[in-house]
Amino acid sequence: MRSHYCGLLGSEHIDQDVTVCGWVDRRRDHGGVIFLDMRDREGIVQVVFDPDTGDHFKAADRVRGEYVLKIRGRVRARDAATVNPNMKTGQIEVLGKEIEILNAAETPPFQLDSHVEVGEDVRLHYRYLDLRRPQIADKLRLRAKVTSVLRRYLDEQGFLDIETPILTRATPEGARDYLVPSRTHDGKFFALPQSPQLFKQLLMVSGFDRYYQIAKCFRDEDLRADRQPEFTQIDIETSFMDDKAVMQVAENMIRNLLKEVRDVDLGDFPHMPFSEAMSRYGSDKPDLRIPLELCDVGDLMAEVEFKVFSGPAKDPKGRVAALKVPGGNDKLSRKQIDDYTKFVGIYGAKGLAYIKVNDKSDLENGLQSPIVKFLPESVRAAILERVAAENGDLIFFGADSTKVVNEALGALRCKLGEDLDLYTCEWAPLWVVDFPMFEEDSEGNWTSLHHPFTRPACTPAELAANPGEALSIAYDMVLNGTELGGGSVRIHQPDMQQAVFEVLGIGDDEAREKFGFLLDALKYGAPPHAGLAFGLDRLIMLMTGASSIRDVIAFPKTQTAACLMTDAPGVVETRQLNELNIRLRKTEAQKELEKKAAQNAGE
Amino acid sequence: MRSHYCGLLGSEHIDQDVTVCGWVDRRRDHGGVIFLDMRDREGIVQVVFDPDTGDHFKAADRVRGEYVLKIRGRVRARDAATVNPNMKTGQIEVLGKEIEILNAAETPPFQLDSHVEVGEDVRLHYRYLDLRRPQIADKLRLRAKVTSVLRRYLDEQGFLDIETPILTRATPEGARDYLVPSRTHDGKFFALPQSPQLFKQLLMVSGFDRYYQIAKCFRDEDLRADRQPEFTQIDIETSFMDDKAVMQVAENMIRNLLKEVRDVDLGDFPHMPFSEAMSRYGSDKPDLRIPLELCDVGDLMAEVEFKVFSGPAKDPKGRVAALKVPGGNDKLSRKQIDDYTKFVGIYGAKGLAYIKVNDKSDLENGLQSPIVKFLPESVRAAILERVAAENGDLIFFGADSTKVVNEALGALRCKLGEDLDLYTCEWAPLWVVDFPMFEEDSEGNWTSLHHPFTRPACTPAELAANPGEALSIAYDMVLNGTELGGGSVRIHQPDMQQAVFEVLGIGDDEAREKFGFLLDALKYGAPPHAGLAFGLDRLIMLMTGASSIRDVIAFPKTQTAACLMTDAPGVVETRQLNELNIRLRKTEAQKELEKKAAQNAGE
Repeated sequence: MRSHYCGLLGSEHIDQDVTVCGWVDRRRDHGGVIFLDMRDREGIVQVVFDPDTGDHFKAADRVRGEYVLKIRGRVRARDAATVNPNMKTGQIEVLGKEIEILNAAETPPFQLDSHVEVGEDVRLHYRYLDLRRPQIADKLRLRAKVTSVLRRYLDEQGFLDIETPILTRATPEGARDYLVPSRTHDGKFFALPQSPQLFKQLLMVSGFDRYYQIAKCFRDEDLRADRQPEFTQIDIETSFMDDKAVMQVAENMIRNLLKEVRDVDLGDFPHMPFSEAMSRYGSDKPDLRIPLELCDVGDLMAEVEFKVFSGPAKDPKGRVAALKVPGGNDKLSRKQIDDYTKFVGIYGAKGLAYIKVNDKSDLENGLQSPIVKFLPESVRAAILERVAAENGDLIFFGADSTKVVNEALGALRCKLGEDLDLYTCEWAPLWVVDFPMFEEDSEGNWTSLHHPFTRPACTPAELAANPGEALSIAYDMVLNGTELGGGSVRIHQPDMQQAVFEVLGIGDDEAREKFGFLLDALKYGAPPHAGLAFGLDRLIMLMTGASSIRDVIAFPKTQTAACLMTDAPGVVETRQLNELNIRLRKTEAQKELEKKAAQNAGE
Repeated sequence: MRSHYCGLLGSEHIDQDVTVCGWVDRRRDHGGVIFLDMRDREGIVQVVFDPDTGDHFKAADRVRGEYVLKIRGRVRARDAATVNPNMKTGQIEVLGKEIEILNAAETPPFQLDSHVEVGEDVRLHYRYLDLRRPQIADKLRLRAKVTSVLRRYLDEQGFLDIETPILTRATPEGARDYLVPSRTHDGKFFALPQSPQLFKQLLMVSGFDRYYQIAKCFRDEDLRADRQPEFTQIDIETSFMDDKAVMQVAENMIRNLLKEVRDVDLGDFPHMPFSEAMSRYGSDKPDLRIPLELCDVGDLMAEVEFKVFSGPAKDPKGRVAALKVPGGNDKLSRKQIDDYTKFVGIYGAKGLAYIKVNDKSDLENGLQSPIVKFLPESVRAAILERVAAENGDLIFFGADSTKVVNEALGALRCKLGEDLDLYTCEWAPLWVVDFPMFEEDSEGNWTSLHHPFTRPACTPAELAANPGEALSIAYDMVLNGTELGGGSVRIHQPDMQQAVFEVLGIGDDEAREKFGFLLDALKYGAPPHAGLAFGLDRLIMLMTGASSIRDVIAFPKTQTAACLMTDAPGVVETRQLNELNIRLRKTEAQKELEKKAAQNAGE
């Protein structure tokens, strides 16, 4: 129907007859002439109708915003006075000759103008209109570009795109499953996959060697701002590759992506052990754009009389750390420091000690701080030396359990980076490696830091002897403080898998019941294999600067896992439940009502 | 770990040191030397270990089938006597120098040799081993190639890959939905999509202009040989394209695919109206590789005394048709004709009349047939002329309701084509067009032949006046008698949608309840749009010659919708059901048991 997209017309089309189709973005009446801004997916072009076009002029006069039109006309240069350098098509306009109204439109429930803030509930209810707004549409177009580039890259590298089932069995990620009642197997349920983990490992046992899938995954969790019940994963698995090789493949893939889509060169990604990331940044996904670092000062504090510091300093599970803000004296007001004290409270910190370094040569009066009076001058001097303080610097302190100090100062570090705009670069990728194999839960049980199929960097015997010391061959890719993805070398030998299950307290029966088919598969010639997965939604958020995951998904769910547009989930007919051999459980309120009714009947 | 894939080694690598990884396909001991056939995803290479490699020779002697090995060695030419021209790597072998056993393997439960027939239950239980067999693995590799080529093509044509939800609301296809209980919305359920139909139409309303998705779809139907509970669809939608344009895009896509993947040139696809397809081939998906055609002879039979023919000939809903098999006299035995009589019985035909044309010049004695005695010689002559019979031809007849005749002779036509190998070419694509908008069900209600969003080729008023005559702007792509895909121009104006709902007896309330969001969307500036969808599984079956859909899916379900490998669906914990506010309905057997128990307690 069209000869050109509206948004792609330019000076090269001057004097050509063109046909465009699209929506009326704006209609104006000016000096007896009708101006229509015609919009399609590529952008907007201005169309002018003169009265001498007769019926076409009358039709142009009749149309309103969001009408769907087909227009034939001739491209001409705009008058110098009306050239719009802010528009791709701003040099030209189309002199309309014919207009055909393809569809009328009622006034939309909200303005589609990109400058207008609209409540998210209305936007999600009319998502098909919201998607016309460039700030959403552009993100989905970039998303399509990203998957296209990723797929092409992986195809070229010999990866095979293989689909794994959506109707399957509970998978081992441990979050809550979405369940699907089976009609043909009475009382049984499918689970929607939390990831294709076991299937991709089995594909390696089958010999496919290099697998990928852009896979839908499902978790029935309470939703935070950056979560959705269904999300998309770039899922990769390889055989006969060690951790270095598979990390290189993934790094090249992401570097190629950023280069092609954003023209950014990420360079080589540094590798950082988990322990170093926690020690220097208080986080296993450090934002390396921010030059601030945590600095251990526990050894200096162990003997001070100030229990707030000496307590954690002497506790093996405690930490005392400093976070120096260069020039912070001038940059941070008393009010801001108070706000940060509240902020670190979110992470369990009971306070936020600080020292303002006014004159580092005067240890008695040159340091401004509520706590400095508790510290001997020798300790003051040692701290200043340890953090390489200069006059004008502000030093924050955290003293608590290691967990609380890391979380509080790690978060404060990022907040300072943002508030003071300390970023030294736009993109800072890294690999975090050498993770612990297990962590201890509050009841002293070992749980997997990644998942139970992650290969330990030691022998089964060493693992059994000292699970707390064992490292895993796992790796996370971090970009600007966001975990883009992660993975591991997998266990490919049954005795190692057995040893891991034993540490986790998974007995033989449970292992067979849950993962029997994987354990069997390891016995029939499983190759060494390794892989990883990236969160596509989060990657797109990062690449588009979106603040909500809902802005990078065409038809997202709300935080209560509902779709406001289709009104899903919905009520179903009893007939359907009967076929599935399930029924609704009575709610407490219903039970209460029935009890009362029965009592009344009895009286 | 490897320097080369096993299957890619050749004469060009002679005298090079290589490292290969893979599985022991076969191990032989011959003249004091160990021969290992090493297999990886690219194929098999022969490795030879001489006793002078010491421990490596001993290790090579120890390995068994399906062990996973890493082998370093030197490529050398085979002796002329041992060259194997049937193997890609048959010119060379690797003289092994080092061997590393990466994993041991127990003896597989079935032989992985491609020549061995294995029961499907065992294959599906050990699917990860079944997938090592080239006849399955090759199909999945081709599938990955196909999706890659399709995506690249659509990307290049400006189509945007946009994901639509899996957790959604019941869609209008009318098959049984898979339901997912919602935990956060008590008593409500998501449905898994039977297709992304409504979402893709909404994306057109949003202005994305060209959409595609390789989408998982779900139907909880009783499974036939060629169905799966979850299947994959190549889903396409466009705006501002008419039927001709969108068919051209799809045709180019499939032509490009067959060219790239199978080096087949399909040429231009003929277009055939539905009515012609039914009349000439008795099918809306005719296999044009077969030169046989149905030929109406009802007008010749109307006045004969033989009621079996004259009845359907005079019935407006009846049909009498002939199907000529050139040279059939010699090709078909009496036994075969009897078998075909049984075969058409499957489709409801009460018999299968035939005439063998021995000598067409002798109308009295030259025709051999149980029915010819019921036909006057003038009718005999007219039939022979109508079907252009030659001596030696065999003519089958069908006389019944049009439906039975079409189904019976249409199926017989395909069976004859297969049995007598009548194919005139390898690939025969076509478009079937001009479908009726509605068909009448057994109770005299109109139902959609495609779906209720298909655009009729007439005005709303004409549609209301005569629904039975209305054609739709719909099109199906057929290849070798298989429907590859189909679609339609959609309704984009509310009054037309309203008119269709009225014919279908869908009241305003029901329309609002089920499709309210789509009806709303049509009001706010919906563009003319059209699209189609292809069944990917079926396309791959056709391209690989697979006889079962399960052979083109990595982890398929059985005909009772179970996964024998993971044992899905499975039992879930009561805790999970409680969270979802559902419980299992008691089966009749359980109720019976409880009743008896209560009676016993009462006695």
